[in-house]
Amino acid sequence: MLGNDRDYIQSIERGFAVLLAFDETRPNPTLAELATATELSRPAVRRILLTLQKLGYVTGHGTRWALTPRVLSIGQHYSASHTLTSAALPRLMEISEATGESASLGVLDGAEVVYAARVPVRRIMSINVSVGTRVPAYATSMGRALLAWAPDDTVEGVIAATEFVKLTPDTISGVEALRSALAVVREQGYALTSEELEEGLISLAAPVRDASREVIGVVACSTSAGRSTPERFRDEVAALLVEKGRALSADLGWRP
Amino acid sequence: MLGNDRDYIQSIERGFAVLLAFDETRPNPTLAELATATELSRPAVRRILLTLQKLGYVTGHGTRWALTPRVLSIGQHYSASHTLTSAALPRLMEISEATGESASLGVLDGAEVVYAARVPVRRIMSINVSVGTRVPAYATSMGRALLAWAPDDTVEGVIAATEFVKLTPDTISGVEALRSALAVVREQGYALTSEELEEGLISLAAPVRDASREVIGVVACSTSAGRSTPERFRDEVAALLVEKGRALSADLGWRP
Repeated sequence: MLGNDRDYIQSIERGFAVLLAFDETRPNPTLAELATATELSRPAVRRILLTLQKLGYVTGHGTRWALTPRVLSIGQHYSASHTLTSAALPRLMEISEATGESASLGVLDGAEVVYAARVPVRRIMSINVSVGTRVPAYATSMGRALLAWAPDDTVEGVIAATEFVKLTPDTISGVEALRSALAVVREQGYALTSEELEEGLISLAAPVRDASREVIGVVACSTSAGRSTPERFRDEVAALLVEKGRALSADLGWRP
Repeated sequence: MLGNDRDYIQSIERGFAVLLAFDETRPNPTLAELATATELSRPAVRRILLTLQKLGYVTGHGTRWALTPRVLSIGQHYSASHTLTSAALPRLMEISEATGESASLGVLDGAEVVYAARVPVRRIMSINVSVGTRVPAYATSMGRALLAWAPDDTVEGVIAATEFVKLTPDTISGVEALRSALAVVREQGYALTSEELEEGLISLAAPVRDASREVIGVVACSTSAGRSTPERFRDEVAALLVEKGRALSADLGWRP
């Protein structure tokens, strides 16, 4: 279904823009702060806030505004409508139990990976992500395992939308390096990255397929350079992740 | 800030109505199914879908539509902007580790409790809730611990919005029974419910306060009637939950 400009409802876009302007840097913004963040006029932001307030998504305290927990329910509808998310949880628990590390399910959204499910473990120094957190695909094991078996169109789309930034000295340097990395992932059956997204962070990811045989997600596990090395983490965790990714794929109707 | 009807932007309401019509009963609806579910006209739903598609929240496959993982990011902004959610995670892990049961953080939204954070445990028969799941306040330990110390206005608002349905033979019978139950919670310092929301489900919840001394959330833990009894669960878990609720409150600036 293709629409034209007449079909586009700008006030819906603006509603989301205001909702997403509440974040860790602006947990309790004023109307003026929201107007600056969204580049909308104050009267426009005011009407949107009043609408979102009536719908129960924001609440006002004096001159400051906050999100309500109702916004969590929007994401819950994604989880409830995706078998992948609920099917993944038992497998993530097995990975976490076997490794002593947090385990995650990642899915591709544009040029980014979104954490769609997560089983955390307790640690003083733990990896601070939650369901809905986004990371760039090019610099992460999750992103590379998602791209390695993706259709050409998807890979080219991600490459076109990616700015290859050196997040650390070890971050992959550009398109050609990414293409080579994807070939290695295809050969190995899993992706391993070390200190490309953040210094000290080592990650592994393995593909999850459904009955269509397409890779629809990845199971992933990370550790810190203080607790392991890329070689040790690979030896100890890669085979397990691949096995759990295949088990989850089988749960979803994939047949080898 | 009080607005009038002129300030209300109906297309924002409709945008959310379409987004929320994707759920476990309708994971991949057609345009016609969405029109029925939302009671909007097909042309209206079509324009909304095209807008949500352009914004990246839905995707079309043939005549069927699906949510994208981008909707998870909306909820993530709630978590990122609320210290409560991130502060709760280590405490929930402690509760889960000590009890062998899943642990949750609940917050009040209208007459319902929303799961704002959760640490699951692996079990064949586990309680199937995730972040964003909503349960009625009157019939749950979480709801009662949230209401027991709430301002009168809040309690009366919840009572007015509640239809006291007998979800099981043991569900509380009405307003007066709820008021008595809240008095017991205040006296005990925690809430215990047994088989009121669902047969076989036993739950405990303890309050979490912030520097304002108001109860802003609850920590909770559940078990099944097959694994424990209300008496044993109380003996083994109530003191721990109260202690972890106080520890989390202290983390948030509450002083006894």
